[in-house]
Amino acid sequence: MFEKIAIIGCGLIGSSILRNINNKISKSVTVFDKSKDVIEIIKKENLCRDLSKDIQSAVKDADLVIFAVPLSAYKEVLLSARDSFKKDAIITDTGSVKKEVNKIFENFNLNNVNWIASHPIAGTEESGPSAGLKNLFKNRWTIICKGKNSNTDKVEKLKKFWEFLGSKVKLMTIEDHDHILALTSHLPHAVAYNIVKTAISADEKFKDEIIKYSAGGLRDFTRIASSDPLMWRDIFIDNSNNIIKILDEFSENINDFKKAIIEKNSEKLLKIFASTKNVRKEIIKAGQDVKSPDFGRKKD
Amino acid sequence: MFEKIAIIGCGLIGSSILRNINNKISKSVTVFDKSKDVIEIIKKENLCRDLSKDIQSAVKDADLVIFAVPLSAYKEVLLSARDSFKKDAIITDTGSVKKEVNKIFENFNLNNVNWIASHPIAGTEESGPSAGLKNLFKNRWTIICKGKNSNTDKVEKLKKFWEFLGSKVKLMTIEDHDHILALTSHLPHAVAYNIVKTAISADEKFKDEIIKYSAGGLRDFTRIASSDPLMWRDIFIDNSNNIIKILDEFSENINDFKKAIIEKNSEKLLKIFASTKNVRKEIIKAGQDVKSPDFGRKKD
Repeated sequence: MFEKIAIIGCGLIGSSILRNINNKISKSVTVFDKSKDVIEIIKKENLCRDLSKDIQSAVKDADLVIFAVPLSAYKEVLLSARDSFKKDAIITDTGSVKKEVNKIFENFNLNNVNWIASHPIAGTEESGPSAGLKNLFKNRWTIICKGKNSNTDKVEKLKKFWEFLGSKVKLMTIEDHDHILALTSHLPHAVAYNIVKTAISADEKFKDEIIKYSAGGLRDFTRIASSDPLMWRDIFIDNSNNIIKILDEFSENINDFKKAIIEKNSEKLLKIFASTKNVRKEIIKAGQDVKSPDFGRKKD
Repeated sequence: MFEKIAIIGCGLIGSSILRNINNKISKSVTVFDKSKDVIEIIKKENLCRDLSKDIQSAVKDADLVIFAVPLSAYKEVLLSARDSFKKDAIITDTGSVKKEVNKIFENFNLNNVNWIASHPIAGTEESGPSAGLKNLFKNRWTIICKGKNSNTDKVEKLKKFWEFLGSKVKLMTIEDHDHILALTSHLPHAVAYNIVKTAISADEKFKDEIIKYSAGGLRDFTRIASSDPLMWRDIFIDNSNNIIKILDEFSENINDFKKAIIEKNSEKLLKIFASTKNVRKEIIKAGQDVKSPDFGRKKD
């Protein structure tokens, strides 16, 4: 299907893609990562034979180039790669926000290549190539946002690539993507970081107790709040408009909730809880979670 | 060790206790639950031979009585049970807030029995007797708060009971308990309900999308936000003073965070993320979570 795939950046996502590539999808695959530690791990785990020494040689002759670097690194990568892209190549990414990086691509005015953004909604709180998983994308959604000059055949080809990795694919506008992800991913992460911060800074006296008794809810937030710091800094800054708007709505809801508990408004509280319980059922029905994701805990 | 244990209320927690009781810990065990559905399940799953028809006969001759009912039901249970308690019996509970129910117990002025509050920090988002697990308490903490007249030997006996169930036990004042649990459990739940509410009410147009793309973080909050509504209404109302105070601190942190992303304050954001990542490590080190609790997901 492809002659050569180039993966730029080989952390959790890049290495999970790498683990799926075989000669059914591409004759060859190359990886570039600027971190020596990452390259060491790839060698040690025998994940890829063809490691590129620079971005130019990685993208040269590649008909699919995948940016799997933090959002703040796109510009630097493009500056290195711009003159080495193969004619008609598909350039995609795996980033969690689209508007700002799309601007960067458009400003580069790349002719003869197809910039088509991708976002596989998959990941764990871990990072680095060792954290990659072959089945990370299986049954997960990947959102594709076409660039303004994207060739329809190339969009179809990229769709098939993600499907080969086990993913379901949805086409969406950049605006809808950034809005929906702000709700389903960026808001939960923003809140998780702040809830953990609140718990640990409230009282130095109780620090040990807070760790000890975290099984009542806090530990689940610490999982999300231990996601890759650099990646999340970039996401919050790139999608700040959507996130601020949604955090404002969230704060209004928190204020309503405080009022309800002060007034002992049982009816209002039960109405909120019933509606949120229902969302859980729909998520399980939609195959986006299993009924007991903490199965590993129950065994301990 | 005990002659007779009476479990009042046999949902997730009550039935998990029940699943652990054998003749090493008590000669007999009885259950009372006012719900016919619950009784049906207990019979069907053969969880207990001795089902009491009323609270009076359940607590009669019991040297350990365990309230595993919602906080708002304690008063009603006590009104029924007050004249039937065995002399010197230990009366305990499993509730998540202590100050208000302790007042109820003190107002009843029960003589000749030992009211000693317990809180096993264990549970899942499920409810009802079928959701009970034999190893629910294993390696989890149970907090014991002595009443003002609690006999020291009885406290020690109750401690041994929870240890028999696999739990680690910590003695604490009622005030510290309600403060710490507000941070580690009630705040996360309050926030989870509100985050899910914000996500679903933000835009009717995107309702399906929000379910579909929930794997980016939201789904983890929906798990917590699908916990038993009645139980959580009672917790929020009973511990409202602590919760309001902590929600105010949380809102201040959210405002700081908004400021940081508007100002693109990379240093501040990274500092927050580093500190929260560290808490995760400490929780795992303390044995309160496993490194990859979502193992069940990775296999799907």
